[in-house]
Amino acid sequence: MTPFSYRCTDCQRTYPRTAVRYLCPECGKGYRPGIPLVGVLEAVFDYAAIRREFDRERPDWNLFCAVEPEFHPPLPVGNTPLARADRLGAGLGVASLWIKNDGLNPSGSLKDRASFLVVAEARRLGIDLVVAASTGNAASALAAVCASTGTRALIFVPEKAPKAKLVQMVLYGAQVVPIQGTYDDAFALSLEYTAQRGGLNRNTAYHPLTIEGKKTAGLEIWAQLGYQVPEAIFVSVGDGVILGGVHKAFVDLQRAGLIDRLPRLIGVQAESSDAIHRYVQTGVYSDAVNPTTRADSISVTCPSNAHGARRAIQESRGLTLTVTDAEILEAQAQMAGQSGIFTEPAGAAALAGLVKLQAGPDRLVGSGPVVILATGHGLKDVEAPLSRISIPPAVPPVLDSLTL
Amino acid sequence: MTPFSYRCTDCQRTYPRTAVRYLCPECGKGYRPGIPLVGVLEAVFDYAAIRREFDRERPDWNLFCAVEPEFHPPLPVGNTPLARADRLGAGLGVASLWIKNDGLNPSGSLKDRASFLVVAEARRLGIDLVVAASTGNAASALAAVCASTGTRALIFVPEKAPKAKLVQMVLYGAQVVPIQGTYDDAFALSLEYTAQRGGLNRNTAYHPLTIEGKKTAGLEIWAQLGYQVPEAIFVSVGDGVILGGVHKAFVDLQRAGLIDRLPRLIGVQAESSDAIHRYVQTGVYSDAVNPTTRADSISVTCPSNAHGARRAIQESRGLTLTVTDAEILEAQAQMAGQSGIFTEPAGAAALAGLVKLQAGPDRLVGSGPVVILATGHGLKDVEAPLSRISIPPAVPPVLDSLTL
Repeated sequence: MTPFSYRCTDCQRTYPRTAVRYLCPECGKGYRPGIPLVGVLEAVFDYAAIRREFDRERPDWNLFCAVEPEFHPPLPVGNTPLARADRLGAGLGVASLWIKNDGLNPSGSLKDRASFLVVAEARRLGIDLVVAASTGNAASALAAVCASTGTRALIFVPEKAPKAKLVQMVLYGAQVVPIQGTYDDAFALSLEYTAQRGGLNRNTAYHPLTIEGKKTAGLEIWAQLGYQVPEAIFVSVGDGVILGGVHKAFVDLQRAGLIDRLPRLIGVQAESSDAIHRYVQTGVYSDAVNPTTRADSISVTCPSNAHGARRAIQESRGLTLTVTDAEILEAQAQMAGQSGIFTEPAGAAALAGLVKLQAGPDRLVGSGPVVILATGHGLKDVEAPLSRISIPPAVPPVLDSLTL
Repeated sequence: MTPFSYRCTDCQRTYPRTAVRYLCPECGKGYRPGIPLVGVLEAVFDYAAIRREFDRERPDWNLFCAVEPEFHPPLPVGNTPLARADRLGAGLGVASLWIKNDGLNPSGSLKDRASFLVVAEARRLGIDLVVAASTGNAASALAAVCASTGTRALIFVPEKAPKAKLVQMVLYGAQVVPIQGTYDDAFALSLEYTAQRGGLNRNTAYHPLTIEGKKTAGLEIWAQLGYQVPEAIFVSVGDGVILGGVHKAFVDLQRAGLIDRLPRLIGVQAESSDAIHRYVQTGVYSDAVNPTTRADSISVTCPSNAHGARRAIQESRGLTLTVTDAEILEAQAQMAGQSGIFTEPAGAAALAGLVKLQAGPDRLVGSGPVVILATGHGLKDVEAPLSRISIPPAVPPVLDSLTL
């Protein structure tokens, strides 16, 4: 581990690690659930120390980690494969296309990375209860990591979360409270819970180490490309925290002098859940009033990290776009059929964004590596693809009757 | 790659790699679907060369691989995490318990390892169609790997396979033929297909590289334990090919002089699908007439590798046992709740076997590492755990109404 302090991304005040927990004591005063976080606390490391000690031959990723290794849960998280996707790339005019398959985290999504670090932090603080609101994946992730450590998990989740995700979190032994309402209602309730009754709140962006956990996906992409900065990374965007995490990875690397530029971040939202896209386009924030997308993991009315996500897009010379549910499900089938990777609709949204971009005037034309971040496993929601495909009828086991 | 030839495990005749494809030309004469394979072709490497060239600091696993790297599919397979499971081990009196989480292969099961190698072999041979019968996992695996290479996949699968597995294989673009019958019927039909109409047959054990592919799980366990041979490895057993593959890993290592003993292999079968267990116990083979287990991946009437599995148990001073479906589902919840790993019923059977063994006179008492091989992802069949758990009812998002 490298020493770090927290800095508010809005007012830029700096705090010792031990002086704050969730938000900037100043900027956080005006915060209430239902508006995006104005500033989040960003971990600022001793970058000179990282530069001095980081060795590409024997990379020590703990240099970038905000919790001491002795508190890390025993469940291995991250280190997911980066798959070369030449067949898919050929059809899209992308010479070097890669898929970071984060569905291969233990609970099936990238959220395991954030849960891992927040549970480590809970252990460091001696807190035995971690509380979260989630559309489903973060909850499964928290439940899984807590199971490995014996930490209690309390989870508020919209009742409409896909069944597989609900089964997971209950089986992992979490206390699950399905809510008659949206993700945003669950988010508000979980904040109220930890404020009044205790426990460590793991809500995404609200706890600063969620972004720190998610940044490990970006660090791995850099290493897996042979320490090369990709030309662009396509990230599906709900709350904007995965986008923020990937951005932070490259910001840390740049501050440490290990890279000299940021990859372009392309944020992809579902058409009905487009608050961040509109914010980037217009500079004016407003909620996505009725987020009905099939891609439940990125279905958000009020993205907690809207401001941070917009900054990440701007700083990286990136862009945002939206895709329809039909485009998402088409991309899901395309990814499965041409790369062998089955990702949930939210993960497929990133590919749908690439498909859309390549069909328009802003298409990528460089030869550098382009990465699609597949954020969750397709098995999380097997009903979704059934709207496009059908299982063939059964036949008698007689060769003569087959025309294949 | 290291040079190798094929040797029949029954008659011990040796053949050049290019002279045979599936079975020993002599011993295979009497084979017909519906009986276990009498001998299978085993890849016998130049072990002196492996010993000379293998370096633990920079391990080159291609030394153990039977297909040249240039034919390997681009989809990364294997290299799954080995998780330390102290909480689970403590309750079972096992000081050093580990779970090899092979559900984190791309299609969600260990079978990806076999499909990877057989598809590589098809590419080497210039064959563009690979055919398989499967209870579900091998089919999904084949479909995924074929999608990454553009190879055609034709799959015969019992119509009762879990929906998630069927969705996967169709979405990956395979030609899927659900069969009105059992896995054994599908197995017979697939053999008939390749014999009469062509393509490379990937049936488990029938194609010798299925065992070679699966052995990589064993090689990884050895490396991940710091090049230590575990005291015991618990493997759920259907066809007996995963057991055979894990055994082959340690046989190869021993032949190369890299280890001096084999780990004890503990084969766990479902009570209703116990052909190999009875064979090991009595020395007399007979089918499991009505394999009704919920653990669909190990539900087999006539295990193709019954003879090889029995040999692996005997040579490793191991044993077999059977568990009930109730014990399997209990173990599934126990693994999820105490380690954070959600494995499908067949994977949980291995833990159920450990639980049963530790309650009896043959309990493990050593302090060496004990490994549970979790062969498939729990998300493959989310209905299974629902027989034991229930999703709590939804409540209004109001803190005062919560008694937590």
